[in-house]
Amino acid sequence: MTEPAFVRARSPEHKQQRRAAILKAARELATKDGVRSVSLGGVAAEVGFAKSAVARYFGTREEIYLELAAECWREWEAEALARMPEAGPIDALVDPLTERPLFCDLLSQVTTTLEHNISVPAARRFKHEMHEIIRSVGAAVAEHSELTESEGIELVTAAGALAGVLYAAATPSATLRELYEREPEIAVMVPPFEATLKRALAALIAGIPTLRA
Amino acid sequence: MTEPAFVRARSPEHKQQRRAAILKAARELATKDGVRSVSLGGVAAEVGFAKSAVARYFGTREEIYLELAAECWREWEAEALARMPEAGPIDALVDPLTERPLFCDLLSQVTTTLEHNISVPAARRFKHEMHEIIRSVGAAVAEHSELTESEGIELVTAAGALAGVLYAAATPSATLRELYEREPEIAVMVPPFEATLKRALAALIAGIPTLRA
Repeated sequence: MTEPAFVRARSPEHKQQRRAAILKAARELATKDGVRSVSLGGVAAEVGFAKSAVARYFGTREEIYLELAAECWREWEAEALARMPEAGPIDALVDPLTERPLFCDLLSQVTTTLEHNISVPAARRFKHEMHEIIRSVGAAVAEHSELTESEGIELVTAAGALAGVLYAAATPSATLRELYEREPEIAVMVPPFEATLKRALAALIAGIPTLRA
Repeated sequence: MTEPAFVRARSPEHKQQRRAAILKAARELATKDGVRSVSLGGVAAEVGFAKSAVARYFGTREEIYLELAAECWREWEAEALARMPEAGPIDALVDPLTERPLFCDLLSQVTTTLEHNISVPAARRFKHEMHEIIRSVGAAVAEHSELTESEGIELVTAAGALAGVLYAAATPSATLRELYEREPEIAVMVPPFEATLKRALAALIAGIPTLRA
């Protein structure tokens, strides 16, 4: 063995621990530096495994982040469902997004980056789970608004899509931060995340029923 | 000279030709293969220049694509303004997007990728121009709907953001195409670009005025 610190996991429990440790390290790195700047090698270094050991659990960095995205969808679903009766649909959908910058970062990357460079089974698991969550939260929206269930699903889909775009706009690159410091009149054009998302969803909730045939 | 085919451009006209040739090659490659798979080296090979010659005009691939995005915004502005009186805001905004897959591809990449790895002057030019266009099209929307000018700007901003997300979802990766072939019930969850975008904008046009204080 050229990796003295590494012993291959044998038991299912041990494997499960390894997997959880990798996801935890990826979550920490992505929270600190942003999803786009984290590599498979970086995750391996953070968790203290060889890169080849990480590859036994996740084929690519994108598969790690797709799994993290699935975890975030589940956490968000639980929060949104719990808050819906008291807070109403808009706050129940948006507040747990605002509180989860990593989830929003992942949402901003899922279609353009994370769904590339993954295996078909990983993609299938992710898509099935995401659609299940969107359906369940959409049904809850229908229960607590004038929207039908399919309109509720539309609203939840729009919330996820807009959260990704607004998050990306609200967390500019180093170049844009420099530009915004020099030219504050450009910076004021950046839409604030929470207020913009709530306003868009409020407009959609009011407008969608007017489109019924 | 180690690059026998290359003679440095001396006159402003010659430089302008070079620049236009690089942009044309980038446009063709991105239209064929998608923005995310095109590199600075690929553009250089397509246009027949050395990579170092391309770098005299554009520091990075992202600067090439930011410039292409600006070109696409201008073309779209002209179309949207020309169609607005006859077609009304929704068709005038969406039809020229549907007809421009390259523009939608660029919109899907601007915030997450293209605004990184560029110079501050390139970012400034792009932001100023984009905001100018959004304001002019937003004002035209206000003229041809019940929306105020600032609400028209909101609608145009939403159209650009949603076009990027919907385009990315409607042009899946190779993995997802394979998955969709095997499991058509997942494929039907992919929202169709034009119909979804028009419906979202129609809901926003109806809903935004209900939010006035």
